[in-house]
Amino acid sequence: MTILNRVNSPSDIKKLSKLELEQLAYSIRAHLLETLSVTGGHLSSNLGVVELTLALHYCFDSPIDKLIWDVGHQSYIHKILTGRKEQLKTIRSFKGISGFPKTKENEHDVFNTGHSSTSISAALGFAKARDLKNEKNHIISIIGDGSLTGGMAFEALNNAGSLKSNFIVVLNDNNMSISKNVGGLSKYLDSLRTEPFYTNFKGDIEQFLKKIPKIGDNVINTVRKSKESIKQFLVPGMLFEELGFTYLGPVDGHNLVDLIQTFKNAKRLNQPVFIHVKTKKGKGYKPAEENPAKFHGTQSFELKTGIVKATNNQETYSDVFGKKIVELANKDERLVAITAAMPEGTGLKSFSKIFPKRFYDVGIAEQHAVTFAAGMAASGLKPIVAIYSSFLQRAYDQIIHDVCLQNLPVIFAIDRSGLVGNDGETHQGIFDISFLSHIPNLTVISPKDKLDLIQGLEFAINHNGPVAIRYPKGKIYECNESIGMPYTIGKSEVIYKEKDIALIAVGNTYETVNKVYKKLKEKNLNVTLVNARFIKPIDEELIKELTREHQFIFTFEENVIDGGYGQKVQYFVKDGCENNTIIKCFALPNTYIEQGSITELRYEYGFDENTLLEKINDMITNTKADKGEV
Amino acid sequence: MTILNRVNSPSDIKKLSKLELEQLAYSIRAHLLETLSVTGGHLSSNLGVVELTLALHYCFDSPIDKLIWDVGHQSYIHKILTGRKEQLKTIRSFKGISGFPKTKENEHDVFNTGHSSTSISAALGFAKARDLKNEKNHIISIIGDGSLTGGMAFEALNNAGSLKSNFIVVLNDNNMSISKNVGGLSKYLDSLRTEPFYTNFKGDIEQFLKKIPKIGDNVINTVRKSKESIKQFLVPGMLFEELGFTYLGPVDGHNLVDLIQTFKNAKRLNQPVFIHVKTKKGKGYKPAEENPAKFHGTQSFELKTGIVKATNNQETYSDVFGKKIVELANKDERLVAITAAMPEGTGLKSFSKIFPKRFYDVGIAEQHAVTFAAGMAASGLKPIVAIYSSFLQRAYDQIIHDVCLQNLPVIFAIDRSGLVGNDGETHQGIFDISFLSHIPNLTVISPKDKLDLIQGLEFAINHNGPVAIRYPKGKIYECNESIGMPYTIGKSEVIYKEKDIALIAVGNTYETVNKVYKKLKEKNLNVTLVNARFIKPIDEELIKELTREHQFIFTFEENVIDGGYGQKVQYFVKDGCENNTIIKCFALPNTYIEQGSITELRYEYGFDENTLLEKINDMITNTKADKGEV
Repeated sequence: MTILNRVNSPSDIKKLSKLELEQLAYSIRAHLLETLSVTGGHLSSNLGVVELTLALHYCFDSPIDKLIWDVGHQSYIHKILTGRKEQLKTIRSFKGISGFPKTKENEHDVFNTGHSSTSISAALGFAKARDLKNEKNHIISIIGDGSLTGGMAFEALNNAGSLKSNFIVVLNDNNMSISKNVGGLSKYLDSLRTEPFYTNFKGDIEQFLKKIPKIGDNVINTVRKSKESIKQFLVPGMLFEELGFTYLGPVDGHNLVDLIQTFKNAKRLNQPVFIHVKTKKGKGYKPAEENPAKFHGTQSFELKTGIVKATNNQETYSDVFGKKIVELANKDERLVAITAAMPEGTGLKSFSKIFPKRFYDVGIAEQHAVTFAAGMAASGLKPIVAIYSSFLQRAYDQIIHDVCLQNLPVIFAIDRSGLVGNDGETHQGIFDISFLSHIPNLTVISPKDKLDLIQGLEFAINHNGPVAIRYPKGKIYECNESIGMPYTIGKSEVIYKEKDIALIAVGNTYETVNKVYKKLKEKNLNVTLVNARFIKPIDEELIKELTREHQFIFTFEENVIDGGYGQKVQYFVKDGCENNTIIKCFALPNTYIEQGSITELRYEYGFDENTLLEKINDMITNTKADKGEV
Repeated sequence: MTILNRVNSPSDIKKLSKLELEQLAYSIRAHLLETLSVTGGHLSSNLGVVELTLALHYCFDSPIDKLIWDVGHQSYIHKILTGRKEQLKTIRSFKGISGFPKTKENEHDVFNTGHSSTSISAALGFAKARDLKNEKNHIISIIGDGSLTGGMAFEALNNAGSLKSNFIVVLNDNNMSISKNVGGLSKYLDSLRTEPFYTNFKGDIEQFLKKIPKIGDNVINTVRKSKESIKQFLVPGMLFEELGFTYLGPVDGHNLVDLIQTFKNAKRLNQPVFIHVKTKKGKGYKPAEENPAKFHGTQSFELKTGIVKATNNQETYSDVFGKKIVELANKDERLVAITAAMPEGTGLKSFSKIFPKRFYDVGIAEQHAVTFAAGMAASGLKPIVAIYSSFLQRAYDQIIHDVCLQNLPVIFAIDRSGLVGNDGETHQGIFDISFLSHIPNLTVISPKDKLDLIQGLEFAINHNGPVAIRYPKGKIYECNESIGMPYTIGKSEVIYKEKDIALIAVGNTYETVNKVYKKLKEKNLNVTLVNARFIKPIDEELIKELTREHQFIFTFEENVIDGGYGQKVQYFVKDGCENNTIIKCFALPNTYIEQGSITELRYEYGFDENTLLEKINDMITNTKADKGEV
């Protein structure tokens, strides 16, 4: 029986000795590794915060004290300590516990997270509410150095500085976001990491000052040099101090004694405190320490060797995008690529190696990424901004205001569009059609398969205006029937043209719709099959034509129904055509979609082949029955 | 003939002597005051940047060197100097020159702005493009201290620090955004403003160091105290230095010699430079110096006295909102109010005075404002976030991810919804229905008049979930026929119930639609008049009912057509009802809407009473003709 067996809630931790805490840390790592080697999940970041999470729960009284985890994929240890160690094996699976904090799941999860850089804002909300209610609990935001580059974290720091009550920001600094971190702040944190622990500051300032070289003249560089040497010694963490925080650190994030002492000190201060904790991603598991990015969000792996179980090395949409962009960049030197801390995930890794000067990783900063691209486009370049669908939500204003208003030729490569699976509600790319397709000047396309993605990218690069191209997560679909019709703006690709029933598939729904098509054909029905390609503008001419000879038009999209493609088609048909064609839109309901495999979710929401077929059959049959045809 | 008459392009400035430049500054102020006293416009901020703009055009070669104006309402002097001094009298008027930089207007406007905090990102895009193309021009972003609190400015600074080429950020620090600026950064800039000019740094560090008190023990507060005293002396602007910038300043922004010298120094550095310029809003015109907020965006005024011409003191939507919120706050102590640097504009000024502890101005930081509200709501409070429609675009992700996903009771008070007039393309609130009404859990309402706004706010405060309430700029409409039907979620207000023709008005369109209704009645037509109230959820029951006895349903909304209310109604009718009712949606086209008075714009886009009436008549007549009824 390990010591972990005795820990069922945070109160059980508070009774433990320092030695027992160390044992518990060991035991937690073993449990985490054992479980995640089977289930997969965010291993590296959680191995890095074992002692940090233990020390937090040792020093604070959750849920009276509020622990708010930025992004939240590093909350597994917190989940283990708050009664969910047995459920860990269900993490990220359909109906299982979430890989992120979820208020509905447990009282110790006080705020949902998932996207980056929100925790300080939320925590400040808790703190101001506490002060207003004259309560005395502690509010702690735990944020990574990657998340700290997101602008809203700065907005929150800027606001928190004037607080006259206890408010703690714990910087979990592992010198990474998902990949290597970038930017001035990152360099600055680097320089701090090597400083002596500030709460142990014992330096004799006078002794130090004697070593400073004399400066008599007004040469900027001389002054600068001496500034550099002085400032870090006198004022570690001054960037945070300037904003009104008391800086404590850097603390060794794997030393329980130091962590506990620092948190105890921080609790006593009636002001905002910024605690700089140095951690190591993957700590305690050699394969993860050596390659933390590989184990950031991992599949199941062999515990002994760290070999991740084969995933068939399937070619993904991101892979094909990455390759095509390299090819296009070879031909067109105006092409540059921008990512917001996702060089691997977006498939831009090889581009970044082949064209290092034309590749820009701006860190977790989607707003900046988009306006930065606008600036480049205004200078005559062709920027491609590759961002996941749900993260691009953060740059909605910049797309409208900085890119499309000026009709600048920026290409938005929107990865993880549609259902993404196990990351759940916060990560599903199910709003992009709705938030993009009302933006003036923007062209929105959604390719159905590999060839179509390649052609779509070629279209985008040649189009003189902003283009959003959305494609899903995972294995790329290759359609045998691809006819490779050349791209023309606003023109759909008609795969089979018959009459009676038209199926219009948007993007990745084509794979399923193609199967539905075949089943309908087996019944000797007349069916037209269309790859929508253009979500904006829609192919009005084709739709008008379809309404002439089709009794039904069915549209399919992995997006919420409101503001989606189907509604646009329906609006056009009813507004612009005179006919009796019945339009039925298959889309996701206007709700948040939970976690699960994409297959499970499609089944749950009626987007699997059989359910779609059944619904279509029902409609056809009922309508015929209405007319007395059966 | 003043010296200004001789200046037709920036090249004319470069020949002038220092004395002539001073005269030109005087002459520009006279021209600005004379013109704006008639036209109205952004007076204070432009009076504050006369010397700054002169010095920039004196030192740099626009448009080869790129001047990028953050927000851009301070670009009038730039417009005067770049060939638009005569056109100034048309500023912000229909078909006149814009109050913001517009690339289509002039080659010296190299990037469109309008929303805050975008200029450093855009400028960095220009700089990286320049470096890639091996060009040598200068890129200068001019940003106010208010805009600097917006997160994306920080994202951009964080990215710019590593640049190895010339890149200049000019901080136009007048210690204000539109109102008094807030936050840790503002305090920090305050402390810098009193420092000696850094480029003249002549201090003997040794001499200074001798004055530092001895510190022998490890008492945090003692160390802190000495830190405070040392750090500013040694390292002014260190916050910016830490991010990789060379800090120059503070420079007197009304001293042409200092400005020119500083810009010349900055041009020589192959690295990012941050120039801190102290300016005074309203400089040179006493009424504006004394009350810069009043002259931020002013109506026409009497030049001699500074008395702003009477605007009838009409009660606005913002006024009614502000009063009602105070009343509600008196009854419910959970109610708190949040603004993003717009206490006056949003009508929250009296709330802030009556409930200073329950009022939070977070500065220009819409993303933080929303998630901060989410944190407060999660703590049991009822936050009202008052933000203009077009600025709320910036918090789209936070509304989805931090508020609505957790179904938190945050109220979004969306001011300046619909057409806003003279601020033009960047400020029209014409996307909010489209970007809000597909968000799960969010209720969206749009009151038609004063009583309806009051009732709507009461509904919102009592609703246990997120509510967005949108209302327009300007004088509030009071409808005689208001029946004050109690609010029920998803229920529209039926004003007159007849048959044949139904008019459903969303929000402020009601005023015009009511007139259209009366004209139709004069023709003895049967007309139903509905105030939509709920945009989400729509009143399905009513609409179903209407389709039974109405041949036409007309919907009206001041929002782009795609993703709007009308499309939702049409989708519902076609998807959920069996009937032949014709639905016609009156909305704005999917384009950016230029500047002009609201009346001019409504006329331009066919939203005036007569055009609407004509179109409705046409439809009725043509449809009847089709059926052989006429």
